[in-house]
Amino acid sequence: MIMNLAIIGFGNVGRAFARILLERKQDLEKRYGFQSKIKGIFELNGAFINEAGLNIKDIINLNPNEFEKHENWKSKVSANNLIPKLDIDIVVELTHTNIKTGEPGLSHIKTALNNGKHVITANKGPLALAFPEVQELAKKNNLYLRFEATTGGAIPVFHLAETALMGNKIISIKGILNGTSNFILTQMSRQNVPFSIALKEAQELGFAEADPSLDVDGIDAACKIVIIANSILKQNVTLSNVKIKGIRQITKDAIELAREDGYVIRHIASAENGKLEVSPRLVPENSTFAIEGTQNLIRFETDLAKEIYIIGRGAGGREATSAIISDLLYIHKKTQ
Amino acid sequence: MIMNLAIIGFGNVGRAFARILLERKQDLEKRYGFQSKIKGIFELNGAFINEAGLNIKDIINLNPNEFEKHENWKSKVSANNLIPKLDIDIVVELTHTNIKTGEPGLSHIKTALNNGKHVITANKGPLALAFPEVQELAKKNNLYLRFEATTGGAIPVFHLAETALMGNKIISIKGILNGTSNFILTQMSRQNVPFSIALKEAQELGFAEADPSLDVDGIDAACKIVIIANSILKQNVTLSNVKIKGIRQITKDAIELAREDGYVIRHIASAENGKLEVSPRLVPENSTFAIEGTQNLIRFETDLAKEIYIIGRGAGGREATSAIISDLLYIHKKTQ
Repeated sequence: MIMNLAIIGFGNVGRAFARILLERKQDLEKRYGFQSKIKGIFELNGAFINEAGLNIKDIINLNPNEFEKHENWKSKVSANNLIPKLDIDIVVELTHTNIKTGEPGLSHIKTALNNGKHVITANKGPLALAFPEVQELAKKNNLYLRFEATTGGAIPVFHLAETALMGNKIISIKGILNGTSNFILTQMSRQNVPFSIALKEAQELGFAEADPSLDVDGIDAACKIVIIANSILKQNVTLSNVKIKGIRQITKDAIELAREDGYVIRHIASAENGKLEVSPRLVPENSTFAIEGTQNLIRFETDLAKEIYIIGRGAGGREATSAIISDLLYIHKKTQ
Repeated sequence: MIMNLAIIGFGNVGRAFARILLERKQDLEKRYGFQSKIKGIFELNGAFINEAGLNIKDIINLNPNEFEKHENWKSKVSANNLIPKLDIDIVVELTHTNIKTGEPGLSHIKTALNNGKHVITANKGPLALAFPEVQELAKKNNLYLRFEATTGGAIPVFHLAETALMGNKIISIKGILNGTSNFILTQMSRQNVPFSIALKEAQELGFAEADPSLDVDGIDAACKIVIIANSILKQNVTLSNVKIKGIRQITKDAIELAREDGYVIRHIASAENGKLEVSPRLVPENSTFAIEGTQNLIRFETDLAKEIYIIGRGAGGREATSAIISDLLYIHKKTQ
């Protein structure tokens, strides 16, 4: 069966996903019997639509100002209006994270699930704000809602919990879920500089946004721990349930004092004893939690396997695509 | 469908497995619809056999010298003779690793696969010596041969590669696959002691055998990298294809010199560019490879997710049971 797809959001991740799906067409067919057709690619001001399947090769190299010239471009159509009418199996929702309302992603996800389409998303906003609701909607309609790319970038946190640790009871989950704040803490410690200088370096290197609040104030990590708590620990929680403390107040002195006792400061997200928290904490300098740079880390505490740590790249288009493709193959396997 | 099991080898891991299967009977049924019956438990000098299902509670607390008194005990029966006659679905092979001949495990595995039984094993010997052969036998007979517990203890290395990293091309695999040699290297470095003293400490703590050769000469790690290379990288290799160098020759001076340049020495197993190797190597002291103590680590280098590290406990009965149960649930899911 050919899987018919629509992509909503054609930024860095959307383009990487479309490109890689094209690159490994043969490979995915050979290894997994997976075939797909992209019928729609939605952007803010319109969409590429072709019910026979878009020619992705043409589209991935276009600049946004060239979209209008393409024969399959339709101006001013919206995903919420068109998704119900298109013959597609899976909506891949990749619009930007909005932690105030979850929109436009939340509406896209609901529209898809209300109209018989499975959903794969890399968008944290809708899940952080409304996980219990959208999960219930997927369940009611007998559809898959997958979100490996929302948390830990390339790290397959949800697949790991669901299949690889089968049979274990997962007691708690802790992690370093934001690469930007970990980079800043690493630089403060390595170069003995204050927060403001380390932040500036992160911004210059493209690791931090002009407004770094989502990262350094712990909101991004909080969204991720909410998704983890709902899906792996079966809690019914949203962003408002997380106690959040950022890293702006961490001083050079605090880092120096920690070092004297053999500790480093890391920005830790945790789901433990029913409580969700994101805050700076002391970890021994030779512990696995003392990872450096932009890496992400997740630690599962389980009853049989005890502690399992998984570490990898928390950001990047190809890395997110790794997660999205694993979701795609998951749905493909389940629906054959 | 109730899964009928036979366990061969009732040592530390066999007992932990039987105990935990009993402990979480309800839980496994509720979460996965999994039900099982243990019909046979084989030891060197006989077996517990009951076609209606053994009462495991009675048996797990018996000392070997009490076996004969049990009503289900049959003296001098052998697994190779009885397995073909018993109505069982899965043979769980947990005898000791023998890296010279693979026996008795190798015969048990072949007998099971030749007689329509799936196999789960924690025994590295048969796979390190004859992976291509037994894999082919399983394939030919349409049976599952699973071995999550052979490598990395509780770390779900094979599940991770197979499901969580789906869609990625795995380029190379490197790891610290022997907790004993990592403990020894850690202690040499931390306490500035020679190999002989660190080995003695490992022996006193029960981390190393009286004859530590399998661990410190790299043979155990080599067996594991062979299993990884065959199953994940689809190579056809055995133990004889691994270039092996142990850690006995590592001196205090070498560790000190490394430290001066910011490095530590770790015993690394690698499958890279078609070559298999186990040898001591320098790794930066702040790299993820510089893990301490008896932990195991595996690093996958992939094309999309890039580097993914997974770290966990490499030994222990409950930890191995975590891996065995994941294999059990895997076969259960596939055969429903």
